[in-house]
Amino acid sequence: MQDAGKHKVVVVGAGFAGLQCLHSLKHAAVSITLIDRRNHHLFQPLLYQVATTVLATSEIAWPIRHLFRDRPEVETLLGEVVGVDREACCVVLEDGARVPYDTLVLATGSRHAYFGKDQWEPFAPGLKTLEDATTIRRRMLLAFERAEREPDPEVRDALLTFAIVGAGPTGVELAGTIAELAHHTLPREFRRIDTRTSRILLVEAGARVLPAFSEGLSAYARTALERLGVEVLLGQPVTDCGPDGIRVGAVDIACRTVIWAAGVQASPAAKWLGVDADRAGRVAVRPDLCLPQDERIFVIGDTAAVRRPDGTFVPGLAPAAKQQGAYVARLIRQRLDGTPPSGPFRYRHQGNLATIGRRAAIIEYGRFRMKGGLAWWIWGLAHIYFLIGTRSRLAVAWSWLWIYLSGLQSARLITQREQPKS
Amino acid sequence: MQDAGKHKVVVVGAGFAGLQCLHSLKHAAVSITLIDRRNHHLFQPLLYQVATTVLATSEIAWPIRHLFRDRPEVETLLGEVVGVDREACCVVLEDGARVPYDTLVLATGSRHAYFGKDQWEPFAPGLKTLEDATTIRRRMLLAFERAEREPDPEVRDALLTFAIVGAGPTGVELAGTIAELAHHTLPREFRRIDTRTSRILLVEAGARVLPAFSEGLSAYARTALERLGVEVLLGQPVTDCGPDGIRVGAVDIACRTVIWAAGVQASPAAKWLGVDADRAGRVAVRPDLCLPQDERIFVIGDTAAVRRPDGTFVPGLAPAAKQQGAYVARLIRQRLDGTPPSGPFRYRHQGNLATIGRRAAIIEYGRFRMKGGLAWWIWGLAHIYFLIGTRSRLAVAWSWLWIYLSGLQSARLITQREQPKS
Repeated sequence: MQDAGKHKVVVVGAGFAGLQCLHSLKHAAVSITLIDRRNHHLFQPLLYQVATTVLATSEIAWPIRHLFRDRPEVETLLGEVVGVDREACCVVLEDGARVPYDTLVLATGSRHAYFGKDQWEPFAPGLKTLEDATTIRRRMLLAFERAEREPDPEVRDALLTFAIVGAGPTGVELAGTIAELAHHTLPREFRRIDTRTSRILLVEAGARVLPAFSEGLSAYARTALERLGVEVLLGQPVTDCGPDGIRVGAVDIACRTVIWAAGVQASPAAKWLGVDADRAGRVAVRPDLCLPQDERIFVIGDTAAVRRPDGTFVPGLAPAAKQQGAYVARLIRQRLDGTPPSGPFRYRHQGNLATIGRRAAIIEYGRFRMKGGLAWWIWGLAHIYFLIGTRSRLAVAWSWLWIYLSGLQSARLITQREQPKS
Repeated sequence: MQDAGKHKVVVVGAGFAGLQCLHSLKHAAVSITLIDRRNHHLFQPLLYQVATTVLATSEIAWPIRHLFRDRPEVETLLGEVVGVDREACCVVLEDGARVPYDTLVLATGSRHAYFGKDQWEPFAPGLKTLEDATTIRRRMLLAFERAEREPDPEVRDALLTFAIVGAGPTGVELAGTIAELAHHTLPREFRRIDTRTSRILLVEAGARVLPAFSEGLSAYARTALERLGVEVLLGQPVTDCGPDGIRVGAVDIACRTVIWAAGVQASPAAKWLGVDADRAGRVAVRPDLCLPQDERIFVIGDTAAVRRPDGTFVPGLAPAAKQQGAYVARLIRQRLDGTPPSGPFRYRHQGNLATIGRRAAIIEYGRFRMKGGLAWWIWGLAHIYFLIGTRSRLAVAWSWLWIYLSGLQSARLITQREQPKS
């Protein structure tokens, strides 16, 4: 039970920002309620590996209340927020329940976005949740299964064409892993089709892949993708999307599996708060990450638009979200102690990492640049380090090592019923 | 591609019986088509551990075509059988495709059955597939989550009451594991409810738990369950089942989570074949496991009613299914070679094993009986031995060892959306 006399912090969202805020509030004189509509924290940077059959769901997700089992001042509620009553200082849940706060931290993240083309979603699922990952995995594996049974060569080719829209880190990682699956893992398992004839398309409206990296590394990534058998289409926006395929520029491409990795939209926190959102749905916050209209409310992570001194925005990356969570926790402590706040939030960039398939990665940190096999090992160790708990670290390291040595992915299960494409 | 001149064996169902038949047909002069409506083989004896958050789905399921990647004469089809055209010697699939056979082996298993009360299914899911397991896991975990947020003490008690119907091995294993979860794993994670107050009921119409064992072991199992906190209700049939609970005899018990482990019904193979089925839906076969009406068709595993010389039926156990698969494979070889068949199928009983919670099990083999901690280790080693592949064996052994030492289950993810109870 919580201490009614203590300052009450409500954190909504158990992503990187929310969890870090809770961790940094350890031993503070507060009681905390953590609300999430899922029962698990998800390590999103590796979600694409669940979608592409490398990892199992439980290797990158942890029950939230389990993470705080030794923190009696933290209570976890599974629930969906539908609004914030700023007058009464209450968070309103779907079932009408009201959770009062003294300080509110909104860290509700983002979803993939279709830039006004929401009708494309049934044909081009995005990748943000475990269900998204198993949906993509099911569709991809079913495409190979159906191709094996398909007598019509045109339909078969469409079944064996996979389009990934968007060449940011997620798109590049998906394309590379699907290409390896089709070209190396699956060929021996099918009798009527040759999965090596699969086309894997990476379609990008911009001029290069991984635009957050320098041009040299970006060009290296493109070459590495092409070596894996990925067709990279640059400077070509997707103009239509339907059950039979996509249109790129003015060209129709028949394909039955499309994955959307082209953009995100912030959660509806702005609507809950009754404040304006920018085009990406984000809430503008003060340099100390609280709402200009209400000092008791912080918005952090992908949901917040945080402007840096040079006018650019803090990027939507896990390290940025964690830094914001830690910053807000410190500010809450300072307010409670009556000490002056330690200045505005400052984002410290920790570099960019991306992987292309099983043996190559690129790393950029300021002027330091690295690519190839050694970079892949560093990428792998860094990701294992950031997983939660010894057990997950060992499990993921073991899965990767097994695949690295044997070349065989094993989490290739088609579960759930196929939903009819609407 | 398959050799058109070879004898064509079609096996329907990739359970224990079907897979063993394929393994035993290795190097035979046949081409084989394996049809299953799922893309994976499932190790059903450990399915209850997926339902109760001990194991991850990919630890006990393997992509079927992966298992036969080195057998070019085997082709795998993902498809649902809807009939058998015995005149034309063709299996008919859902989409109208026809798969011709020279010899047909039906090994399509069984589903849980409600003995004419199919309307109970939405409230009392059974446990036969991976989806069943994740459904049960989701409902069970959501019950604790809802109880944490429930102000009404009566509703809360109903949410914290779990009824398992049927005290065979699956029911006993489920009850023991849920009791351990509620009494040992979860208490530290909830703030408003005490999960140790949960009621776990094991309801059985018969006179004792685990009736396949001798009375002494059966009594031991009951005591072990009660020590774990399970309430064992014997000799009491469930007479009704609805959204608010169950009726046992004439007593209503309010509970929101009911799991059905009380009986099975064979797959509709009899209907496909146009032959009579017994009350459990099984097809009567000759002593050599083929159809009395058609020597080219074998029915094996849980779908077949195989009478033993003493008049009893071969039990629906994994070893029995495997022995039948191996027997049929040998018979097919003998027919092709023109050698005389080696007599009728003989079931060799390999003993009974069951586990009750994390540290106790019972073993019975003829007059040999064993119970307690050492039996649990033997049970564990036997199950690891029967898993497929080094990787799964290591993964399951590792999961068990981790839980054994730390007491913490980790696969506690609520995935998929909750389906509305109809």
